[in-house]
Amino acid sequence: MARYQVILAYDGSGFQGSQRQVKIRTVQGELENSLRQLGWSAKSVLMAGRTDTGVHATGQVAAFDFEWAHGSSQLLKALNAHLPPDLAIQNLTETSADFHPRFDASARRYVYKLFCDPIRRPLREKLAWRVWPALNEEALQPAADLFLGTHDFGSFGSRTTPNGTTVRKVTKAEWKKMPNGEWQFEVQADAFLYRMVRRMTFVQVAVAQGRCSLEDVRKALSTPTALLSGLAPAHGLTLIEVTYESH
Amino acid sequence: MARYQVILAYDGSGFQGSQRQVKIRTVQGELENSLRQLGWSAKSVLMAGRTDTGVHATGQVAAFDFEWAHGSSQLLKALNAHLPPDLAIQNLTETSADFHPRFDASARRYVYKLFCDPIRRPLREKLAWRVWPALNEEALQPAADLFLGTHDFGSFGSRTTPNGTTVRKVTKAEWKKMPNGEWQFEVQADAFLYRMVRRMTFVQVAVAQGRCSLEDVRKALSTPTALLSGLAPAHGLTLIEVTYESH
Repeated sequence: MARYQVILAYDGSGFQGSQRQVKIRTVQGELENSLRQLGWSAKSVLMAGRTDTGVHATGQVAAFDFEWAHGSSQLLKALNAHLPPDLAIQNLTETSADFHPRFDASARRYVYKLFCDPIRRPLREKLAWRVWPALNEEALQPAADLFLGTHDFGSFGSRTTPNGTTVRKVTKAEWKKMPNGEWQFEVQADAFLYRMVRRMTFVQVAVAQGRCSLEDVRKALSTPTALLSGLAPAHGLTLIEVTYESH
Repeated sequence: MARYQVILAYDGSGFQGSQRQVKIRTVQGELENSLRQLGWSAKSVLMAGRTDTGVHATGQVAAFDFEWAHGSSQLLKALNAHLPPDLAIQNLTETSADFHPRFDASARRYVYKLFCDPIRRPLREKLAWRVWPALNEEALQPAADLFLGTHDFGSFGSRTTPNGTTVRKVTKAEWKKMPNGEWQFEVQADAFLYRMVRRMTFVQVAVAQGRCSLEDVRKALSTPTALLSGLAPAHGLTLIEVTYESH
C-alpha cells in the first residue's frame, strides 16, 4: 500500500463543485469512481480544497492510498482512461504515508480571468467573465494592493469550518493584461474563505467601474461585519496551484 | 423593409451545425427564433456557409429582410437579448437589398487550433485538438504550402452542390505558434468543400508525425480519386471571416 498525490485539472462547468455529494456529479466523486474501476476500495480520497460549482482547476490536489504494482506512470494512464473528458490527472507521484493535501498545504493560488466588451462573445466567455461598462484599468492594481498581507477577510468570504477564523494572509494579488486583451487577477494566500476570490474580484471591478472607492474596500477589510453581496461568476475562476513546503 | 447583414459568433459544441433542420438545434434555427420574437415573419434567413456540428465561428455571416424602426444598434441588442448564451451577433449593419451572404462572398477564412501533449488538458481541449505523438513542427508549413493555389481538392472534401466542382483556390495556408504553445493553422480560400479544412489539418499532422510524406499530399492533390479518411475533430475549428469584395 502506498499513498499517491495527484494534480487534477477540470472544466468546472460540468461539475457541481469538487466535493463529493450523494447523487451529484462532483470532481471527488468521479475520481473515486475511476479508482474503484481499478479495484480501489477505500472510503474516500483526500482533497486539498473545495471549489464551487462551475469553478475550474488546473492545479487541484488529491491523495489516496492504493495498492498498485505497475508503476506511477501506468497508474496515471489507467486513471485517465477511466475519467471523463472534463477531468484529468495532470501529474501523479508516490508520496509519504502521512501526506495530507489539505492540512499540509502552505498556499493556494487562483487566477480570475475577465475581459471588457459590450457585446457577448460566446467563445471567450467560456472561461472568462465579460465585464461592461469598461474598466478604468489603472484602478485595478491599487485595489489589489489593499488585499496584501494579513487581514480579517470576513467581508469577503464565509469561514470554512464552523468556528474557524476569517483571518487570512494574502501573499500575491496581481493584475496582468494578456496578449489577447484579457485581464487576469492572480491571487495567492495561505488559504481562502468560501467564495473569497470571487468577492475580491467583484469589488475590484466595482472600483474600476467607479461604483465604489478604494476607501470602501479598506473599510470592508477593517470592519468585517457583513459579507459583501457582489460575486463574480464562477466560470472566470481557476485554481492553478496548491503549494507544499517540502515540494 | 431593409436587408440586414450580421456577423455571428457561436460555440459550436451545443449546435448540430449551422444550417436549419427540423427539430434540431442549429445556429440558423436559433437566429430565426430570435427574429420571430421581434415580429419577423419571413421564411428564412440567408447564411454565408454551412459549418458542421461542433465547429465554432466568430465570423459567420447571415442576412435577412426586416421592418425595424429603432435603428441598427437597438436591433443588435434586441436580437442578442433573445439569442442563447452560446450564440451572439457581433456586428449588424444595413446592407443593399440584393446582398447575398453566400453568393457574394469572395473568400472564407478558418483557423484550426491544436497543441501537442501526451496528457489530457480539459480546459485547453475545449477549443483545440490535443495531438500526440509530438509533431515535427518544421514539417507543418512545407505541407501547408502544397495547398496554396488552385487545385482539385476532391480528396479533401465533398462537393457542396450535387454537380458542383471540387476545384478551389487557396490564398492563405499558414501555421503560427501562439504564445501559449498552441499551433494555429489559418487557411483562406474562395470557398471550401465539406470538411475540407479538417482533412487538410489531419493530413498535415500525419506528415508532421511521420505517418505520411509530402509526396503523399502532392499525390492526393494531383489525383483526387477518393476522399482521404482522416478527419481532425470539429472542436478545433473556427470560421473566423467571410470576405466580400465591396466591403
